[in-house]
Amino acid sequence: MEDLKQFLVVLSAAAAGGVVFIFLHGMAIIVYRLPWTWQCSKLMMKFIHAGLNLLAFIFAVISLVAVFDFHNGAKIPNLYSLHSWLGLVVVILYGMQLVLGVGMFLIPVTPVSWRAALMPVHVYSGLLLFTSIIAVALMGITEKLIFGLNNPKYKDLPPEAIFVNILGVFLVVFGALVLWIVTRPSWKRPSEQTLHILHTSGGGEDSTKVGPAMSQLSVGTDAEASEDVRRRNNRLDDQTN
Amino acid sequence: MEDLKQFLVVLSAAAAGGVVFIFLHGMAIIVYRLPWTWQCSKLMMKFIHAGLNLLAFIFAVISLVAVFDFHNGAKIPNLYSLHSWLGLVVVILYGMQLVLGVGMFLIPVTPVSWRAALMPVHVYSGLLLFTSIIAVALMGITEKLIFGLNNPKYKDLPPEAIFVNILGVFLVVFGALVLWIVTRPSWKRPSEQTLHILHTSGGGEDSTKVGPAMSQLSVGTDAEASEDVRRRNNRLDDQTN
Repeated sequence: MEDLKQFLVVLSAAAAGGVVFIFLHGMAIIVYRLPWTWQCSKLMMKFIHAGLNLLAFIFAVISLVAVFDFHNGAKIPNLYSLHSWLGLVVVILYGMQLVLGVGMFLIPVTPVSWRAALMPVHVYSGLLLFTSIIAVALMGITEKLIFGLNNPKYKDLPPEAIFVNILGVFLVVFGALVLWIVTRPSWKRPSEQTLHILHTSGGGEDSTKVGPAMSQLSVGTDAEASEDVRRRNNRLDDQTN
Repeated sequence: MEDLKQFLVVLSAAAAGGVVFIFLHGMAIIVYRLPWTWQCSKLMMKFIHAGLNLLAFIFAVISLVAVFDFHNGAKIPNLYSLHSWLGLVVVILYGMQLVLGVGMFLIPVTPVSWRAALMPVHVYSGLLLFTSIIAVALMGITEKLIFGLNNPKYKDLPPEAIFVNILGVFLVVFGALVLWIVTRPSWKRPSEQTLHILHTSGGGEDSTKVGPAMSQLSVGTDAEASEDVRRRNNRLDDQTN
């Protein structure tokens, strides 16, 4: 009974840590993309992005420590499951991504050419880590529902199993939403040039107008946006062939 | 003993089906992106893409039928686990994606504007399904290692557990590779215009030269590629701010 109670405490700690980790990482990913953050300075957004990721990493480490502690206390071997293998690798890579990200994109001395070269890798590995963490969480949910529910068992689908299954579905839906937002060109933060035009031409007088003003600009004057339009036309050409 | 044997047969059938499903889907995703397919006609590539996806779907359905059959035979409830919930949803959505894809992009009567509107959704949902299927497979691996290994147990990490864990790691690495290839602008199939220029200017005389010739073209004459260059420069500008 004492064991079960301790198990449930650790389960809750690790699960809550994992879910908060995923939530914070997801927020860190889309924070540049939310239109109401476009008016904030790029540097501030970088700090928020890094801060959210650091917080997420702290939760991940707390979860890891909780699980190792519980295993050692209950004489359960560590690191035998695929969940644990991938989970550990993902948290280590996440830490490396964090250190490399701060070193390359926040420290002002890093050459611009290095930043430009690393950016696609940073974006790719960030999104890959995000999806991997969700997959690791889903494996964790599966493990714990099998081990943690004995009477009734997981296969009898008691209410707690339904609840945790639904949590898993929500994690997937949350991941899908973040990936949707981050891959939409229209949600992309406009270049600093565009923001400069906006602020100097008075579009920034009323902050509630920034959204629509920005969308007009992004069709009319921004070089990057006009490329987007041409790209779309090209794609249209492609599809007729 | 008979049960265990049947269990192992079904496990192998379902696992092999799942792995083949993931492999074929991954191939279908990157088939446009491989430089040595750029010289093939777009229509042929569409048929190969659709064919690979259809084959993948058939393997997915076979896996599903094997699992339901086994559950019913062994009086194990169906559809109680998160693995089964997500797995079923993913296969149904995959089938819908297939029907919609053929209807929109292979049947010649579909208006070009519809194709253009659906393409980003088609790409997004294809990649989302791909990552989800890998996550579902990882949960399946976790379930089966826990249920299937009794002496020694999963936590004792017998050789078969190590083998299947490594299979899971390979699935993640394969997924990461496919996502890397599909998100690199330099691997993108050039527009039909570029291919036309290449073929009419004699660059296609020697098929082994198509790769380098293409890469020269993509810097010099292709509108889409010059946009890419400008986009990269813009990104450089962004990072200085």
